[in-house]
Amino acid sequence: MNNPIRIGIVTVSDRASLGVYQDLGGPAISKLLHEILSCNFEIIAKIIPDEQPLIESTLKELCDVDKCCLVVTTGGTGPAKRDVTPEATEAVCDKILDGFGEQMRAISLKIVPTAILSRQIAGIRGSTLIINLPGKPSAIRDCLLAVFPAIPYCIDLIDGPFLTTHENIVLAFRPKNK
Amino acid sequence: MNNPIRIGIVTVSDRASLGVYQDLGGPAISKLLHEILSCNFEIIAKIIPDEQPLIESTLKELCDVDKCCLVVTTGGTGPAKRDVTPEATEAVCDKILDGFGEQMRAISLKIVPTAILSRQIAGIRGSTLIINLPGKPSAIRDCLLAVFPAIPYCIDLIDGPFLTTHENIVLAFRPKNK
Amino acid sequence: MNNPIRIGIVTVSDRASLGVYQDLGGPAISKLLHEILSCNFEIIAKIIPDEQPLIESTLKELCDVDKCCLVVTTGGTGPAKRDVTPEATEAVCDKILDGFGEQMRAISLKIVPTAILSRQIAGIRGSTLIINLPGKPSAIRDCLLAVFPAIPYCIDLIDGPFLTTHENIVLAFRPKNK
Repeated sequence: MNNPIRIGIVTVSDRASLGVYQDLGGPAISKLLHEILSCNFEIIAKIIPDEQPLIESTLKELCDVDKCCLVVTTGGTGPAKRDVTPEATEAVCDKILDGFGEQMRAISLKIVPTAILSRQIAGIRGSTLIINLPGKPSAIRDCLLAVFPAIPYCIDLIDGPFLTTHENIVLAFRPKNK
Repeated sequence: MNNPIRIGIVTVSDRASLGVYQDLGGPAISKLLHEILSCNFEIIAKIIPDEQPLIESTLKELCDVDKCCLVVTTGGTGPAKRDVTPEATEAVCDKILDGFGEQMRAISLKIVPTAILSRQIAGIRGSTLIINLPGKPSAIRDCLLAVFPAIPYCIDLIDGPFLTTHENIVLAFRPKNK
Repeated sequence: MNNPIRIGIVTVSDRASLGVYQDLGGPAISKLLHEILSCNFEIIAKIIPDEQPLIESTLKELCDVDKCCLVVTTGGTGPAKRDVTPEATEAVCDKILDGFGEQMRAISLKIVPTAILSRQIAGIRGSTLIINLPGKPSAIRDCLLAVFPAIPYCIDLIDGPFLTTHENIVLAFRPKNK
C-alpha cells in the first residue's frame, strides 16, 4: 500500500498566526500546487509566528512524522530582526541547495530591485525538500514556477515519491542517462 | 532632536594604511554617495590594514558607537591570503544577505571575467547594513549603483533613518502594500 | 630549478571506484585541460568513492604534498545522500569563492533546469585552487570553459605558477594596474 504524497505549507507570520492579518501566502501556494501537479497529493498547512524554535519543530514534524516529500514556507525571509525562516531552515537541513535561492532572487530581480533583500534558501532534510518562498502571493508564483521544473527530479534523487506535473504549466525535467 | 544620518566608509588596505599608496577607494565611495543621496548625511572614514581583528573592531564601532545606518568597505575581498574583509564582515553580522554579493558579481562579470574571484558580501548588524565593495574605483561605482535601489528600503526594515536619493542617479524602491 | 606545474583531477564516484562503471569525467577534464593550457603541466588523477573523509584526505594530499596549483573534482555535488564532494571541499578550504558556483550554475541553467540542484563550489587551500565540477562530460566542458578565464589570475594571487592558455579556446584575463 502506497503512502499518499504529502506536501507541507508553513505560513510564518506573527500577524497571521494571531489572526489579525489574513494569511494570503499559504492559500496562494496551495492553489498553485493544484495547478502544477497532476498526481494525487494532500496538503498539511500550518500558520505559525516568527519564532525560530517553533519554525524548526514545525519543519521537523512535517518531514519526519508526516513524511512530506516537499515543504514550502512563506514569509520571514527579509532582513528585519523578526525574519528568521532561513535560519530555522538551515538549522534543520542536512544539505543546502544554493541554486534555488540564486534563481529565485534572479527571477524576482527582474521585477523589483529589492529582490536582493530576500534571504530565501532551500535544502534537504532526509527525504524532504524544503523551500523558502517570499510572503507576497505574486512573488510566490514567480519563484515557485521558476524552480518547479527541477523539483520532481530532486525528489527522485532523495528517494521521495514520483511527482508528475501538468506540462502546460510546468515541464518537469528528468535527465535521460543517469 | 534627530540624530544626523551617518555613513561609515572603511578602506581596508595594508599599503594605504601605511601611506605608501594613495587611498582611491574611500574617496570614490564618498563622492558617489554625495551624487546619490539627497538627504543630509555625514561620513566617517577610516583607513586600516588587512587585519581581521582590526576590521571587526572598526566595523563594530561604526555600527554600535557611531550609529551609522550604512557602512561600506573597500578592498580585501579577493582570494589572496591577506584578503579577509568578508571574513571580518561575516563575523560581526547577525544576518548575511546573499543577494548583494550575487548581484554585484553578476554586474562585474559583464565587464571582467575575474569578477568571480570577488568574495564581497553584505549583512546586517543591529540597525546597520554593511556592504563590501571592490577596491577599484570603477568597480566600486558599478557595484554600488547596482544595489543602491534596494538600500533605502533595507534600512527602513532594520529601523534605520529614511534615506532619499536623487532619482536621476538612483531610483530608490519601496514596495507599496507592506 | 622550477617545479613542474601540477594539476589534480579527482573523480568521486562509488561505482567508478569499484570499476563497475567507466570513469568518463576524469578523462574529459584531462582532455579539456590539454586543449586549454599552452604551458607544460602534469596531471595526477585519482578515482575514489563518495566517502567524505577519503575525499578530504585526497584533496589535502594533492594540495599539500603534490603541490598542485589546481585541483578539479568531478561528481558527488547533487542533493542525494551519498553526494558529499562540496562538504569535503569546504572542510579543507581556507576561503570559499561563491562566484564560481554561481557562474557554473548560471551557465548550466541555460541548458537544463535541474542545474539548480548542483551544489558545486570552489575554494582556496594554501596555494591551491580547488573546483568542483559536475559528473557529466558535456556539463564539465560548459562549466570549466565558463570559469577558466579567471583561473590563471586567481592562481597568481595565491602565489601559484604562471599558467598560459591557447587564446582561441580560453582568453585568460589578468587586470593591468593591480
